Amino acid sequence: MIVVMKPEASSQAISNVISRIEADGYKAHLSQGEQHTIVGVVGESPTPLREENYSSMESVEKVVRITAPYKLASRHFHPIDTQVPLNGSQMGGNKVLIIAGPCSVESREQIIEIACEMREAGATALRGGAFKPRTSPYSFQGHGEKALQWMAEARERTGLPIVTEVMDTAQVEMVCQYADVLQIGARNMQNFSLLNKVGESQHTILLKRGMSSTVEDLLMSAEYVLSHGNNRVMLCERGIRTFEKATRNTFDVNSIPVLKALTHLPVIADPSHGTGYSEYVIPIARAAVAAGADGVIVEVHPEPEKAYSDGRQSLRYDAFRSMVSQIQRIAAAVDRTA
Amino acid sequence: MIVVMKPEASSQAISNVISRIEADGYKAHLSQGEQHTIVGVVGESPTPLREENYSSMESVEKVVRITAPYKLASRHFHPIDTQVPLNGSQMGGNKVLIIAGPCSVESREQIIEIACEMREAGATALRGGAFKPRTSPYSFQGHGEKALQWMAEARERTGLPIVTEVMDTAQVEMVCQYADVLQIGARNMQNFSLLNKVGESQHTILLKRGMSSTVEDLLMSAEYVLSHGNNRVMLCERGIRTFEKATRNTFDVNSIPVLKALTHLPVIADPSHGTGYSEYVIPIARAAVAAGADGVIVEVHPEPEKAYSDGRQSLRYDAFRSMVSQIQRIAAAVDRTA
Amino acid sequence: MIVVMKPEASSQAISNVISRIEADGYKAHLSQGEQHTIVGVVGESPTPLREENYSSMESVEKVVRITAPYKLASRHFHPIDTQVPLNGSQMGGNKVLIIAGPCSVESREQIIEIACEMREAGATALRGGAFKPRTSPYSFQGHGEKALQWMAEARERTGLPIVTEVMDTAQVEMVCQYADVLQIGARNMQNFSLLNKVGESQHTILLKRGMSSTVEDLLMSAEYVLSHGNNRVMLCERGIRTFEKATRNTFDVNSIPVLKALTHLPVIADPSHGTGYSEYVIPIARAAVAAGADGVIVEVHPEPEKAYSDGRQSLRYDAFRSMVSQIQRIAAAVDRTA
Amino acid sequence: MIVVMKPEASSQAISNVISRIEADGYKAHLSQGEQHTIVGVVGESPTPLREENYSSMESVEKVVRITAPYKLASRHFHPIDTQVPLNGSQMGGNKVLIIAGPCSVESREQIIEIACEMREAGATALRGGAFKPRTSPYSFQGHGEKALQWMAEARERTGLPIVTEVMDTAQVEMVCQYADVLQIGARNMQNFSLLNKVGESQHTILLKRGMSSTVEDLLMSAEYVLSHGNNRVMLCERGIRTFEKATRNTFDVNSIPVLKALTHLPVIADPSHGTGYSEYVIPIARAAVAAGADGVIVEVHPEPEKAYSDGRQSLRYDAFRSMVSQIQRIAAAVDRTA
Repeated sequence: MIVVMKPEASSQAISNVISRIEADGYKAHLSQGEQHTIVGVVGESPTPLREENYSSMESVEKVVRITAPYKLASRHFHPIDTQVPLNGSQMGGNKVLIIAGPCSVESREQIIEIACEMREAGATALRGGAFKPRTSPYSFQGHGEKALQWMAEARERTGLPIVTEVMDTAQVEMVCQYADVLQIGARNMQNFSLLNKVGESQHTILLKRGMSSTVEDLLMSAEYVLSHGNNRVMLCERGIRTFEKATRNTFDVNSIPVLKALTHLPVIADPSHGTGYSEYVIPIARAAVAAGADGVIVEVHPEPEKAYSDGRQSLRYDAFRSMVSQIQRIAAAVDRTA
Repeated sequence: MIVVMKPEASSQAISNVISRIEADGYKAHLSQGEQHTIVGVVGESPTPLREENYSSMESVEKVVRITAPYKLASRHFHPIDTQVPLNGSQMGGNKVLIIAGPCSVESREQIIEIACEMREAGATALRGGAFKPRTSPYSFQGHGEKALQWMAEARERTGLPIVTEVMDTAQVEMVCQYADVLQIGARNMQNFSLLNKVGESQHTILLKRGMSSTVEDLLMSAEYVLSHGNNRVMLCERGIRTFEKATRNTFDVNSIPVLKALTHLPVIADPSHGTGYSEYVIPIARAAVAAGADGVIVEVHPEPEKAYSDGRQSLRYDAFRSMVSQIQRIAAAVDRTA
Repeated sequence: MIVVMKPEASSQAISNVISRIEADGYKAHLSQGEQHTIVGVVGESPTPLREENYSSMESVEKVVRITAPYKLASRHFHPIDTQVPLNGSQMGGNKVLIIAGPCSVESREQIIEIACEMREAGATALRGGAFKPRTSPYSFQGHGEKALQWMAEARERTGLPIVTEVMDTAQVEMVCQYADVLQIGARNMQNFSLLNKVGESQHTILLKRGMSSTVEDLLMSAEYVLSHGNNRVMLCERGIRTFEKATRNTFDVNSIPVLKALTHLPVIADPSHGTGYSEYVIPIARAAVAAGADGVIVEVHPEPEKAYSDGRQSLRYDAFRSMVSQIQRIAAAVDRTA
Repeated sequence: MIVVMKPEASSQAISNVISRIEADGYKAHLSQGEQHTIVGVVGESPTPLREENYSSMESVEKVVRITAPYKLASRHFHPIDTQVPLNGSQMGGNKVLIIAGPCSVESREQIIEIACEMREAGATALRGGAFKPRTSPYSFQGHGEKALQWMAEARERTGLPIVTEVMDTAQVEMVCQYADVLQIGARNMQNFSLLNKVGESQHTILLKRGMSSTVEDLLMSAEYVLSHGNNRVMLCERGIRTFEKATRNTFDVNSIPVLKALTHLPVIADPSHGTGYSEYVIPIARAAVAAGADGVIVEVHPEPEKAYSDGRQSLRYDAFRSMVSQIQRIAAAVDRTA
């Protein structure tokens, strides 16, 4: 950490900063610049440094953090890729994995039919919403536990593991009885109670990036889960909120190589939410794999115009099959399989 | 709702849209434009209209919603201002109310001392965090229930009602035993499980706008609470996330008159989070009141450089007192009191 | 165009809207919804419709545009891909073309050396800045016309056409004497005087998206150029400004399939500005081609740490050669060449 | 400037950084942190430091700038407020000044009538567009020089100085013959050729913030003008582009106290563009003055529904008069006049 003093800082103000650093158990290292005195904080101490304690001191202009605020998620401390087992494959391994299914589980028949189609077409896991976070209290909120039972039945029939969202700490235990992967939705990425709870669960976690969260925020949320000794965490880019209105969200393809550089965790892409329109899902799925994504998660529905939710961004079966074969070609072009 | 067909839409595609509208219990009204056929949906029906079911139909270019998606929060349906009782005053009445206190409750002594100062200086209610949502799992997470007990003691001493954040459905019942106002933090604005739970509680709610939420999203979240028959809801603008880096967030002052136009609920401003720097809190508090805010919530700490959290944006006592008198002058200039 | 009246609109207010529509030479088509009266504007007239004239009328809630505001740039009116000739190839044809070179032309030797390397490595055209738009008046502003002469010499030696930015109407004529392609930089995307001037020039134009411009804004700026009968326009996605700080800009990969759907003009990608870091340029170049980009423009420098500008995002020669071969593989995976 | 080395940086890489610093004429100051070596750059040298030259060196993690990149605009170097004369008053003095007029000058009669009304109602200067930057090439582009002549006539009749936009270097000389204040529009804030030209003109400049420009970008653009010895520059906040759709732009009220802290130049507010809706203009004008703005610029039109442009955000005469008296009350509440 570096403390930059204001040009007019008195020697007393500088002394106060140094005293504070020493009280926290670190050493202060002074540099006198043209205008500014700069105080470096070096050494180690059991007391964590709180930037704000320094930035709110008298005559401090700003405080610059040098070290990343996450440790367990950091590639610097864990240089080797973490691989998360999924249906006999490894998310984060050489093979690009595909997770697919409807936005909402609408009926027993629906989810079983889709599961069969998805397995046939090459999906590794089945997604489906039992509890749906909906902007409106008047929208369909999901079939709840019944939907989880139907998904479990679909798993029995197809062997596909189940990926489903958990929205609340009170649901975690119950959802764990059915789900193979707990999804933390974008709106809950900074629901820290929930992150702690799913961290404790030791279940595999699919953590979606919040729509206004930075890559660093996402890694800090992953750190919550990892801090419980649960390192089966997949990160998911699903688009951020910007001024652009032509798409539902702006898929931040940059985040893929950035995350691969900063963390050892696998990174997957959600081009359904990342675009909001079924006609753009396939090109963005290709782009994500070309950029280095370890997997793709997409919404599929046999009749999107009848879907209870997210119909506009759901692929039909034939489009899904086409996407799989296009992803295979792109994967091969970056020396991977799919 | 209006369905705009693509220029090349066949008459079959248009018929399909009409049939769907009729199946949903509405009437279709056709207009033939220069390029586009437009199908208006009119009448009433028990079946709610799902935009996506139409937007994902063949040859539909776009679907335009006409009516606001919220009803209970809408000024159209409830033209008269809702006033929320707070310590003998009314949030949403003529008087501009001030809620103040530390970011975190750090100790029994701290919160009692601050409460006394705040009452003295003219605050209507005391804020303080017992459960803190922190980006890092390594940061101070709050003293929990103990902090709530200390706040209750501070209330006994000062008469100031307590405003405190609840982060999780599992905490709601317990927090309700101590708190007068439940705060829903920005990161939980779309935690719909929590919104339902606090709606059921019938406690007064202070709902903060999410940092990437639109005004409409905020009103939809309020609708969740209101749909449980709980209409004691105060909305809070606390800054949104933008590209600007000179401040922690961008305080969206526009949202104040916009919300006053769209909803009957009281609107308060948080210039502490809205700016992130104590030196900008007072001018932005003035601006918020000038724009029509019904109240202000600010962070205060006797020694910001020693605060456990948010020290950089906390006012000292003397600055707080100055803010109160400046707000009184601005309030008078818009024919209100403070 | 559709005019949505406020729920409380009087019949007089509705009549006024209808009269205005008729005065503009169109026909009004009324629909009575549950809450709102909706007035559709149909027919044709020489008077263009001004949305704001209607939206500012009494009791009008909002005005919804149905037709895209651009015509010449629209794929609807020009379904066939426009191909822009470049060095014997076609931008917008099957082959993915690569434009490369330094951010600034620093010396005669530098640009000639780089040009030779680029041609060798497979570039189709040479980019280089003679006039540099710099945030700071104290930064290097380019060598001006001298740099253009050096580029012309580099073209003679290599056969590579020259792509260079023109910043001001007063420069257009002079720059046209040297350049094969006039680049309009992101900061000038809505410099309408400049767009008119380069439109008149009939030179090939590379139009970069402004950092806070929507896709529709970009197409409207293209429309300025096209309205002068100059249809040799390439559009360039180069990243937009968002809250994310891990990269210089957020490369909006969605815009590639969106633009390919909305317009017939070729679309190229600038992963150098789109990321700001050389280590992310190649994965994003791959992603852009996978998403459907017709070409890529990148910054290359033999010694980035000595570059006068944009060193941090410039590829070294060996990285550039690697990028070319990676793009070739991705292009093949989407049935194109490179 | 501070250079932060990567944790794995070799001593050779560190030496290279030091050598480069010394070659640039500065001294290097090393601090050895827990993970990172940090190299401070101290001293003075005629060679300006280029951050990118260092950030692109081997094993450099990041470069942190300490000193603001602007000098002439900086309050640090010029602590006393700059006052810009306007019609016998001073923008940046105690009195809050109001600039008002139509978006476009539509006719001789229109501008003369509006000018009379504005003077009567208390405006200090008359705004009006002769050259209009329009997103669409098909929209009204302004009456050009003729409009300037009409404005000059309005000035003769009322004594109000003229504020009008100049869009292109080629127009500057001509516009200077008529205008008292040259406005640089948001879309041209980083048109550096134009900034240089108006800087040379020695005319008073009203510089609007670009819709995706940071406060620092705005000050750098001001620096361009100031670097020509022209310090009669007023800065104008007019809203930035965000995800919020309820208003045309998001008026960044924070920027007002931030700018007042960082620079000595006067700061004015444009609530017309800052909101886009006439009904929100007055509350945001009040907010801006409460936050410390030195002046306000607004659009006024006798019949907004007939305006050639920006009708939706134009105040009628009576609303304008009401705004003036409301601003006077707010100004008094912050110890100013209006």
